[in-house]
Amino acid sequence: MQTKTFLGVCGSLRKASRNMGLLRCAQTVMPEGSSLIIADISEFPFYSADREQPECVKAFIRQVKQADGLVLAVPEYNYSVAPALKNALDWVSREPGSLLAGKPAAIMGAGGGMGTSRAQYHLRQICVYLDLRVLNKPEVFSNAFSAAFFNNGDVADTEEGKKLQTEIKELMAALCRQAGQQLR
Amino acid sequence: MQTKTFLGVCGSLRKASRNMGLLRCAQTVMPEGSSLIIADISEFPFYSADREQPECVKAFIRQVKQADGLVLAVPEYNYSVAPALKNALDWVSREPGSLLAGKPAAIMGAGGGMGTSRAQYHLRQICVYLDLRVLNKPEVFSNAFSAAFFNNGDVADTEEGKKLQTEIKELMAALCRQAGQQLR
Amino acid sequence: MQTKTFLGVCGSLRKASRNMGLLRCAQTVMPEGSSLIIADISEFPFYSADREQPECVKAFIRQVKQADGLVLAVPEYNYSVAPALKNALDWVSREPGSLLAGKPAAIMGAGGGMGTSRAQYHLRQICVYLDLRVLNKPEVFSNAFSAAFFNNGDVADTEEGKKLQTEIKELMAALCRQAGQQLR
Amino acid sequence: MQTKTFLGVCGSLRKASRNMGLLRCAQTVMPEGSSLIIADISEFPFYSADREQPECVKAFIRQVKQADGLVLAVPEYNYSVAPALKNALDWVSREPGSLLAGKPAAIMGAGGGMGTSRAQYHLRQICVYLDLRVLNKPEVFSNAFSAAFFNNGDVADTEEGKKLQTEIKELMAALCRQAGQQLR
Repeated sequence: MQTKTFLGVCGSLRKASRNMGLLRCAQTVMPEGSSLIIADISEFPFYSADREQPECVKAFIRQVKQADGLVLAVPEYNYSVAPALKNALDWVSREPGSLLAGKPAAIMGAGGGMGTSRAQYHLRQICVYLDLRVLNKPEVFSNAFSAAFFNNGDVADTEEGKKLQTEIKELMAALCRQAGQQLR
Repeated sequence: MQTKTFLGVCGSLRKASRNMGLLRCAQTVMPEGSSLIIADISEFPFYSADREQPECVKAFIRQVKQADGLVLAVPEYNYSVAPALKNALDWVSREPGSLLAGKPAAIMGAGGGMGTSRAQYHLRQICVYLDLRVLNKPEVFSNAFSAAFFNNGDVADTEEGKKLQTEIKELMAALCRQAGQQLR
Repeated sequence: MQTKTFLGVCGSLRKASRNMGLLRCAQTVMPEGSSLIIADISEFPFYSADREQPECVKAFIRQVKQADGLVLAVPEYNYSVAPALKNALDWVSREPGSLLAGKPAAIMGAGGGMGTSRAQYHLRQICVYLDLRVLNKPEVFSNAFSAAFFNNGDVADTEEGKKLQTEIKELMAALCRQAGQQLR
Repeated sequence: MQTKTFLGVCGSLRKASRNMGLLRCAQTVMPEGSSLIIADISEFPFYSADREQPECVKAFIRQVKQADGLVLAVPEYNYSVAPALKNALDWVSREPGSLLAGKPAAIMGAGGGMGTSRAQYHLRQICVYLDLRVLNKPEVFSNAFSAAFFNNGDVADTEEGKKLQTEIKELMAALCRQAGQQLR
């Protein structure tokens, strides 16, 4: 059996980020033979054509190259994608070689009542250009202000938290199936 | 006659930005009695709930408060809004008092063949939450790689450049009319 | 005081439509001096450049001309706008004279858990082309499967129904203010 | 070698539809061992929960069941999807069994200057719910008012027409590869 490694990227830079909590939860429910690394994008500058790639961006690009797929945790600010996540993808997209093309990707998010759905549809359009193969289902829309989360951002062991865990587990299983199919 | 002052925000941080060129062009075609200031967002950090407003953000927020409306020049990266522009709006949106609510806004962009149209529709959705009153028309979609621009980003005095200037002039006139109507 | 007349259009053709219920509710909470007529689009054929306007479409176009603004009740089918509503707008848009340009419009919807929000953002993009002046707020997202509705589609006199009534009342008040401002 | 059969659906009901011309062109460039049938949706009524499936819809649903994938030719009306195409998909989506789930799909369109791009991104969001696996690339945006088309809607043998033919051929090849991969 071939081992698959995925790369998680979280759009929130907040310490107690619920979206980072979603990624930590995903790490605990990955199917056997697969694993999830979480990228550190906290020091990235804004992309600009005038700016050289700093070392932190270079390191991220190496991680993207090695990953069998991406897991994107997307906060919603003002009905769209958190800029830190978009900016990380923008940096990768300028690297020669279409690094993201054909990689499977899973999207999830924690936010207000609609669970970042508005941001997720924007992110899906972004992924068309990047040629990421985004899973259609399950869509993970979680309420950041509910009992599904502890104060430190972790998914809780409450009823709501367990339901969310199950959804994330299904999403990770679908991602692994997709990665297996793509790489054959 | 009442003087109107507008605030321009450009999503590109590049020196020779065509989108910044659109804003400089707009400054030259403002209707009498109105003016356009261009904000400096180049030093903004990414918004985070954990981060204090730095002085450059505070200065921007003061400019937003005083402005009778906004002019947004939006580059398109990967089929959506350039993060620096989104991030500037995100910072303002967290300030108490809904500073943007009800202000008229104009959108324009320079990019690839579709002239940032994909980014502009995302930006329009963002503006619904911010309660900005975005003009529907004219939509300014300009080709950053055409003879409409000089190499330094300025709108050129070519035929294409003059056509673009006329569109920007119409947009600024519509913005002033909207601002007049809103403020009565 | 000038009387304002608005035209309601519902995208569902179902007898017990909750979206039609939203429009009937709106009729009961219109500000003094204003009224809401509900259009009948049930017999419209699909728009085609080859097809002549049938009488039912002609009648609708006359209603649109006379209306001071529109109230659009939008069901969500498969994450976008119900075709019957889109088709009614398409017919009007082909009539010479940009009949919709500048008219204020309010959007509301009843649907699944997200209350047709996905369809509403598509509808807002449609309205950019039509040059309708769509109110940003309040956004009315109602759950068609909740106690807010009776089985015949009417907004109920339950707690949820009363909350929804209040939202619709606020939306209609904002629409009338907008119509007053536009027409001055 | 396994034979693949695809189903084409065109959102325009016009006789000289350029979008229908795209589908006819696709029929001529299908990879060996694959074929494309074009559905007839011209007599479909609007979907309504109150309405029984007419025979023409039943026939379409049988075609969808048998197809290895879909080819959607999408006109853009007022910045979104032509209602006849959306309505055909809506009818299928109400049939038990998630008939579209997992099927590969290709999107193309002929329209104004942006080649129906605005409609295509709406259609992609619709396909998320339907769980169609839409190809990211190539995106086919063709100008309906250019020399790429003859007056009867067919793709012309002009330079522009040949370029378009090549794009459609690439899209059909990608669709067949996807269908092969999905069905293994």
